[in-house]
Formats: sequence, C-alpha cells, structure tokens
Amino acid sequence: MSMTGVLRPGHVQIRVLDMDESVKFYTDVMGLKPMGKDAQGRAYFKTRAERDHNSIILRQADRAGMDFFGYKVLDAATLDALEKKLQARGVKTERIAAGELLETGERVRFMIPTGHAIELYADKTAVGSGVGCTNPDMDVLDAPGICPIRLDHALIYGTDLEGSRDLFTDVLGFTLVERALLEDGKTDLGVWLTCSAKAHDIAIVRHGEPGKLHHVSFQLGTWEQVLRAADIMSKNRVSIDMGPTRHGITNGTTIYFFDPSGNRLETFAGGYDHYPDMQPITWTWDEIGAGIFYHDRKLNDAFLSVVT
Amino acid sequence: MSMTGVLRPGHVQIRVLDMDESVKFYTDVMGLKPMGKDAQGRAYFKTRAERDHNSIILRQADRAGMDFFGYKVLDAATLDALEKKLQARGVKTERIAAGELLETGERVRFMIPTGHAIELYADKTAVGSGVGCTNPDMDVLDAPGICPIRLDHALIYGTDLEGSRDLFTDVLGFTLVERALLEDGKTDLGVWLTCSAKAHDIAIVRHGEPGKLHHVSFQLGTWEQVLRAADIMSKNRVSIDMGPTRHGITNGTTIYFFDPSGNRLETFAGGYDHYPDMQPITWTWDEIGAGIFYHDRKLNDAFLSVVT
Amino acid sequence: MSMTGVLRPGHVQIRVLDMDESVKFYTDVMGLKPMGKDAQGRAYFKTRAERDHNSIILRQADRAGMDFFGYKVLDAATLDALEKKLQARGVKTERIAAGELLETGERVRFMIPTGHAIELYADKTAVGSGVGCTNPDMDVLDAPGICPIRLDHALIYGTDLEGSRDLFTDVLGFTLVERALLEDGKTDLGVWLTCSAKAHDIAIVRHGEPGKLHHVSFQLGTWEQVLRAADIMSKNRVSIDMGPTRHGITNGTTIYFFDPSGNRLETFAGGYDHYPDMQPITWTWDEIGAGIFYHDRKLNDAFLSVVT
Amino acid sequence: MSMTGVLRPGHVQIRVLDMDESVKFYTDVMGLKPMGKDAQGRAYFKTRAERDHNSIILRQADRAGMDFFGYKVLDAATLDALEKKLQARGVKTERIAAGELLETGERVRFMIPTGHAIELYADKTAVGSGVGCTNPDMDVLDAPGICPIRLDHALIYGTDLEGSRDLFTDVLGFTLVERALLEDGKTDLGVWLTCSAKAHDIAIVRHGEPGKLHHVSFQLGTWEQVLRAADIMSKNRVSIDMGPTRHGITNGTTIYFFDPSGNRLETFAGGYDHYPDMQPITWTWDEIGAGIFYHDRKLNDAFLSVVT
Repeated sequence: MSMTGVLRPGHVQIRVLDMDESVKFYTDVMGLKPMGKDAQGRAYFKTRAERDHNSIILRQADRAGMDFFGYKVLDAATLDALEKKLQARGVKTERIAAGELLETGERVRFMIPTGHAIELYADKTAVGSGVGCTNPDMDVLDAPGICPIRLDHALIYGTDLEGSRDLFTDVLGFTLVERALLEDGKTDLGVWLTCSAKAHDIAIVRHGEPGKLHHVSFQLGTWEQVLRAADIMSKNRVSIDMGPTRHGITNGTTIYFFDPSGNRLETFAGGYDHYPDMQPITWTWDEIGAGIFYHDRKLNDAFLSVVT
Repeated sequence: MSMTGVLRPGHVQIRVLDMDESVKFYTDVMGLKPMGKDAQGRAYFKTRAERDHNSIILRQADRAGMDFFGYKVLDAATLDALEKKLQARGVKTERIAAGELLETGERVRFMIPTGHAIELYADKTAVGSGVGCTNPDMDVLDAPGICPIRLDHALIYGTDLEGSRDLFTDVLGFTLVERALLEDGKTDLGVWLTCSAKAHDIAIVRHGEPGKLHHVSFQLGTWEQVLRAADIMSKNRVSIDMGPTRHGITNGTTIYFFDPSGNRLETFAGGYDHYPDMQPITWTWDEIGAGIFYHDRKLNDAFLSVVT
Repeated sequence: MSMTGVLRPGHVQIRVLDMDESVKFYTDVMGLKPMGKDAQGRAYFKTRAERDHNSIILRQADRAGMDFFGYKVLDAATLDALEKKLQARGVKTERIAAGELLETGERVRFMIPTGHAIELYADKTAVGSGVGCTNPDMDVLDAPGICPIRLDHALIYGTDLEGSRDLFTDVLGFTLVERALLEDGKTDLGVWLTCSAKAHDIAIVRHGEPGKLHHVSFQLGTWEQVLRAADIMSKNRVSIDMGPTRHGITNGTTIYFFDPSGNRLETFAGGYDHYPDMQPITWTWDEIGAGIFYHDRKLNDAFLSVVT
Repeated sequence: MSMTGVLRPGHVQIRVLDMDESVKFYTDVMGLKPMGKDAQGRAYFKTRAERDHNSIILRQADRAGMDFFGYKVLDAATLDALEKKLQARGVKTERIAAGELLETGERVRFMIPTGHAIELYADKTAVGSGVGCTNPDMDVLDAPGICPIRLDHALIYGTDLEGSRDLFTDVLGFTLVERALLEDGKTDLGVWLTCSAKAHDIAIVRHGEPGKLHHVSFQLGTWEQVLRAADIMSKNRVSIDMGPTRHGITNGTTIYFFDPSGNRLETFAGGYDHYPDMQPITWTWDEIGAGIFYHDRKLNDAFLSVVT
C-alpha cells in the first residue's frame, strides 16, 4: 500500500481549566460534535466530517496544555512493528489498554525528546461523518459554530528539536517538508513534517522549556471559511492572537486564537501537497518573519513566547 | 516511510490532431509552462507549481486520446519491486530507456485490463516551481491562462474494470475511495482509487470499448478559480461539456471541457481526504446522477458516451 | 439627495399552489424569516438582513405566478409626485390602503404595458436586521437555509416591452443598463434597468403573452455562497433550471431554480455598478446566448419558454 | 431619475515624493492602467474596469497627502445647481477650466470645513473598460498587479467634522450610513456617508489638524482577491498597516497599506447596501475598536495617528 505506517493525526488530549466553559466553547464556538464523557470526566469531541469516534479530548486540570497527541496507524501489525522500531531506537514505550479512551483501541505511548507524549493506535470506532457511506449528500454549513473539517496537526515547542525531528523521520516515517533556520544558517529553529502528502502532520519549534504546546490546528475548507471563523470568534469575544493571514510556510491561510484556558488553536485552509521525493523548503533567519506571517513579514511577540 | 510505493500521477501523453493549435491552447488557455520539444516532435509542459520537468506531453496523431498515463514511484528500488510484483501477477512489463521522455528516467510500461498503457518511473529532473526552495514568495495568479496547480488524475473508460481495479489495488497499493454500482447493485460501473490520501489518483468506468480516455484532470486551488477557469474558457470559445458544478463523488467542484482535438479535460477544486482505514463510499444506480453531477442529480448525455 | 425617487425593490407577492409546502420551502430551504400571516391567509417573509418588515408575500392560488412587484420610494411626497407623473402619462393608478399588506403603508398600484402590476409605497415598518443599529455584530451564516441578503429584482415577460421600458425610464427614473437585441439589430428582446447604481432592479423580456414571471431574484454575498445554495437545493431535491454559472449580462453568478409551485427563483452574487452617465451594454442576437449564460454561450430551452 | 445629483467618487490627486517610483508602484503593484502625463508632469491612471479616462492623478511634491478629491455629478445642469447651493451656503467655489485635468471637463472646487479640497465635475471622456459595450467578455484577472475594480472612497481627517458632515449631507445630498461616537456618547468621532446606495463614498474622522488624508480606497471583487492583494503586497515588499481583516463599520473586508510616499491606501471587498430610508448604525466609544477592526476588536496605534 502506498499510504501506510502512520496515517494521520487522530486525537489530542487538551488540558482545560474549567470543563463546563470549555465544553461550551468547543461545542458552540468551534462547532465540534460532543461525543460523550468518560468515567474520569473527560469530554470527547469530533468534527462533523471526521468518521472516527473522537479526535479532541478535554481533561480538567489546573494548568493548560497538551497531555498527548495521537496518530492513527494502518493496522495492528503496523502498531506492533512501529513499537518495536521505537524500542530498537531506545525509546521506552507504554501500552495503554483499549477503552481507556472511549471507543479507542490499545495505544502505544512514548515520550519524544522535546518532552511531549505521543501515541500510536490502530483502532477507533468508525461512527461515520453524518452523511453516511451510501449516496451521501453534501454536508452544508448550517450551524453557528466554526465547524472545521478535521483535527489537522499540532505545533509543539521543546528543547531537543533534533531528537524529536529524527525520531519522527527515522522511526515513524515522516518526511521533512519545510525548515526554518537559526542565525547560524545551520541549526533548525523549526521543522514541519508530514506522514502523508499534506503540508504538515506535526511541527516542532526549538524552545527553552520542554513539553510545550504552541497550537492545535483544525482544517477549514476555504479562505472564506477562515473569514467566517474570524467573524464567529469576534462575535463570541474569542481572543485572536493573529490573523486572518497567510503563512509563508505551507502557504496555508490562518487564524491563531485562544480557547478559554489559554491554549492556542488554529483554524487554517489551504497549503500545498508534499511528496517524499521533493526537496524541503528552507527559511533563513532573516526571512523567518515572512515564513510565519507572510503578509506582515514579521513575527508578533506572542509567536515565540506564549505557549501552554 | 508512510507515503511510499506509487507516489502520484506524474505524466500523461495526450494525442492531438494539430500540434501548433494544441501548443497554443495548452500554453495560453490552460496556462501551462512549455518545457520544450523532443526529437519526435512531442511538446512538453508542466504547471507552474509542479517541480518536476514535465507532466503533459502532446503527440500529434490522426486521432485523439491518451497514449499512456505515468505514476512517479518513491525510488529506483520501488520501481524494481513493483515491476517484479506486476510480473508475478502475470502482467507483461516493458522497460523504456531513460531519456525517451525528456528529463525522465527509465520507465516501466504495462497494459492494464481496461486496455490502457500505464507507466511507473522513479526519476524526473526537478526543475522547481518557480518560487524556489529558499524563502519562497507566493506564486500569485498573474497570467491570462487557467494556471492549474497540478496534473491530478485521469478517468479512463474500458472493458475489464474489475481487472484494472484489482491490479491497482492488489499490486500497486491503491485504495478504493468510492464506487458506483450498476443496476444489479453488485457490479461496479465505476471506481475511484487513490495511491495517497487525496480523493482520487485514477478513476475507471466500465465501457464497451477498451483503452478510452474520459478526461485528464487538473487541480485548481478554489471554487473562485473554477469560476475564473470557466470565464477563461468562454472568453477563448472553449467548448464546455459541463460545469461549473459539483461532483457528489469526491465532493470536488468541476468543469469538464474539451481541448481542440476533442480530448476532455477537467479543472476541479476541493475533494476530501481519504485514508486506507476508511470505508469506501458507494453510489447506487438510482443515485448515480447525483454522484456524478450533484446539483443536477442527473447525467448529461455526453458523460457516458463521449470519449477519445 | 443623490439617491431619491424610487429606492429599491421592496416586496413581491407570489402565488403558490400549496401554502404549507411553500411556507416550509421559503423558510427551510430559502432560509427566509417568517413574519406572520394576515387575515387573508397570506404568508410574509423577509431575509435576515432586510430591515423592513416583509419582502416576500405568498398567496395561495390555483396557478403560480406573481401578483405584483413593489418598490419602496423615498417618502410620502415622492409617492404623491410619482403617482401624479403616472397619471399625467395616462397610467391609471389605484391607492391601496395602509395595512392591506402587514406593516405596510399606503400603496400606489398600476398596470404596466407588459401586463404586470407594479406598486410604489413609502412606508413599511422597520423591524431591523437582527444585529441591530448599535455596535452590530456580523450576521454569520449559521442556519440550514440559503439565507440570501435581499430581494434583489425580478425578470418579467410580457408583450409591450417598449411600453414598460419607457414607463420605467421616463416616469419612474430608471436607467437602462443592458439590452439584448432581436435579429433585426434594433428591437429589444430584453432590457435590464436600475433605479439605483446596481446592475438591475427590474428586467423585462419580450414574450407572446402578457403578465408573466420569469424569475424573482435574491442576492447572495459570494460565489461560494452560490455553491452552498446549489448544495442546499440538491440536498433538498429542489429542481435546478440552470447553474451555478455566470451571466454575461450584469456579470452576476447565478442559479435558476423552481419553488414547489413552479415559480422560477434566482440566487445570484456579484454584478457591476452602473451609473446613469454610463453607456448601456448591448448584446446582439448572435451573442445573446453568451449574454444569458456566459460559460455555455447558449440558451437552454427553458429560458425563453418556461414562465409562470 | 432616482440616482441623481452627485454620482460617485471620480478622481483623486495624490502627492508623491518620487514620481518614477510611484508610477511603477501604481502600475505594477496596484495594477492600474497608465493614462498618460500632462504638461505639469502629473501622471494619470484608471482601473481596468473604470470607463472614464482617469481616476488617480499623481503629483510630485515634497510632502505626501491628497490635493483634492473629486465627485462626478449627473450633468452640467447639476453642476451649476450644486455650485449655487454651495454658494448659498456661504461656501466659496472656484471654477477650474476644462482640460486642466486631462480629458476632464470644468470642475467646481471648494474647501470643506475639515480643510480638504473637494471637486465636482460633470464630464470626463468615456474611454471604456477594455471589454467594450457590445457583447463584452468577462475581464479575467490576468496580470501581476492588484487590479482593483474602482476608486471607491476616501477617509479624510480634519478638525471641523460637523461642518464637513453637514455640508455633504445638507448641500451635496449625501446620507449618513454609520457614525462612531466619542466618549460623551454624543459627539461624532467619525462619520461614513454615501451619495449612492453603497456603504460609503466619503468618510470623515475628527482630528487635531485639518486637511489630512487617512486613506484612499479601492474596491476589489472578493475576499479571495483581498488575499491575492495581500500576497502581491508581500511579494513586492509593500508595507501593510493592517489586514487582511474585516471592518465592523460597513462590514467590508480590508487591507490598509502604504504607497512608496507613505500615503495609506486600502483595498477592500464587500459592504452592505444603504438607502436613505435606513437608520444609521452607531458605534459607541467602548466598541469603536470592533467598529474599525472587527476581528481584533481594538484599534492599532497607527489608525488614529498616521496620516498624510
């Protein structure tokens, strides 16, 4: 099979400070579909178009941030094989029992050198997208929330960028799509990696503290839906960090904004296809501003400093 | 690597009746970049955004149609491995020398049961997209032609649909994304297959005659660019078969139109991502109209009859 | 005042065959806001963005069509003055009492030479657009229906085109924006007229029978909303006559479709501004196809024959 | 005639510091059509779609800013009548000879209380939009520049806001569309006025110094063209002040940016229709941020301070 191994971002567990307020936000403003709560009190959501049972899991905690980010792999055999590859690399893995997350099979969890917990899993109950698999009608925008297409990727901040980058590329089969360099012209400030042919399935930026979340990103269909998302944010008094604008990196159009706990989220549209035979794009230190925010050609203060 | 094996549609050789008129059409109306001619008189083109040297090759002939459709594979080892798999399946393969197509490595060519020549190759000179790989600026729409992003897929018509379908899925690693059924509710009228995570890299429709081309398709960025493409077609008196409209199948927005030789082309935008863990979509006979043309919910006469 | 006299299309009374089915259609599919029923059983609607109490009035009858089309004028003095001008022209006018239509002031009704009842009125209760007049938030698309911006214009079919055309331009202050000519190169097949600076506030096509309605038109904000409208129509099995496509005339993008009674409606977006100092656009007989449907450059059968 | 009196913004004379650099900018980046120079060395431009000979006039000077802003009126009789009304109001008017601006008839010039020179004129040679007035094809985006539709409006800053506001409304027939109030809840900080049915033909903000220009604005067709404009600006290293974003006031989507002399320009799309029977929208002091920049809901520093 051409598309094999790690398929795509499948779920993320986000820490929120106030569960009720957060459920309201992710339901009403984000337009996600609530998929129930578990015995621990965690709240589950999926987008309308996603077919698996859940992609966003909220856990109440006393500080914001990301507990873990999970990728769906092709099948159980792939899960076993990737676990062995991780262990062969010296990465300690942990098996988490099926059902620990609602409607989700056994997960392999491990820490990556930037200090983030990453998970792989092969099974999550397919509940469908709402239009079904037989003669489906179009899923028309018909609700007050943003209603993104899918959980798309995360940008994580941490210390040992090289370690995480190499683990994703050497062990998990990701490809380097773009990189931003530090002033020395050699060291990576950030890398954008894909496990498929889309512009990024994970991005990593070098940071003084490990295990930080810059943003969790949701895909929208069009630039017009990016505008609608910004209108919805303003109408709901959501704090916008940046945008609507365009990234030079990936070419995607974007808004950065914050959930009620201060976790940065992104809604974006567009971005080019990348295949593993293609040369990565490089952004040099003096042009990194245009790489991040193409129109302004400079970073805003928050980009490098505000993380959860 | 997650994205491996057959990567993507890479080139197609199209037969045209009048080379000069065709070069003018593909250059001025389609907005493709001319990449030279070879000793046989074939004319080469690429889109602005494509990085490899060529994707569209025109050959003058006395009847229109498609000579062959080629896929780029990950590397030379993959090419060898896939050739062996084809041969093991009983498919006769032919090696075509590097350079027979300009700036293109050795190709493995074979006939599929619907009567079409398919090629695999691992090498084509990377000439870049025009914005380069270092601090690239956006490639802004600034020319009179349609300027698609890429050669995206083809829809081929032929007799032994099952044979070609199974060869693509069993041997070449493609995944079934959608299918349209005949009245019996079992037999495939058409199948849409991907070798990546996009909605289709090849589509096959059952037809009384082998080796026919329904259309070669080019991707556009947005529905607004679909409108611009239709305006350009009208302004240039290009014959439009259908559209702008939307396909139920893949959800893409589309225009079908004809090149000066009568080859049907498509410019489309949108379409959802498909991963191999997902259940294929099925269209039943009574709803096939909505599958092909979602707004009208019925086929036009030309869809099932006009091919080259 | 620069914008004076006849301001804009304000209301239209449409005959429907089944009131319940029609109320459901105009509410759920069109996304209009129900504004109540009157003692005669007529149902009233407005768009979300319209500020006056009603714009669409449905009356149950045994044949479809349009009872009358009404324009709002600047004020009561304007109403009086225009009535006098009409009478001076020899047009018989009728005063209809305030309140005969809900929340609507006194109306001046008269027949125009193509056999249609046109009304003028100065007062209709301003109920507001829903976002208010103080610090209004954006009105985000958040409901299942099409949700047009406004009642925009009508295209009427009738016998004495010249008579109606001249009455609109000479008496009511409309300006000729575009015209389509018959084969003789002199006689108008159709005219597009504005009382403001938009591309049309009324259009008239020559027809063998008087008093016919070709379509009532609603404005959408964007081409993407035209696509969404077409998706909603298909999802609701609404019969689409034509589109999405573009008119050469006015440059608007469009869908023609039918309400459950067979009245043709239009949702459109775009179109250029026209001021009275500008030369009208002329479409000759051989290019009228491109004028009506720019992409196909030919009329469909229904355009000249199907009216209510 | 319904649309009468002052028709629309027709021309603006902008002071630039370096003529060659400015001609290059307005031609290549803005995508305006150069229409020649006059004996004084002034450079003339129009948009592709504008039908009159010129709308933008550049004059080399040692400080940036606006020399005058001109409105086209319906005809010579209107020009005379409006001049008389101005004089009756005590406004001193000046007649400038036909031909002083290329292809432009006699102009009536006067100073308004905010310290700006405004002009009225009835004649400017109609050179057409490039697609002609018979069977016009669509004007497809086919050039590197931004290519706006038209000169749309200006926002001027000055001292006696009430004086200019009342002159526009009482004498020139403009209508108040929106207003932003100072902290006292009574005094206007800014007013948006129309002479047609579009959201604004002039806007005035109260300022400590008279005769200042905040921005000259150009209309684009769509939000996607706003994005393309921003991409073109970045690619050409144009300094962007703000955007792409949305105004609460008028609902338009917008980019503010600077020409090489530091004059602020705007490219915008959208905005609602306003008719003189409608209640103006009011923005209170605490929500003025959302009025100006709807997504961020706060002013940037430059909005109130940087003018030319």
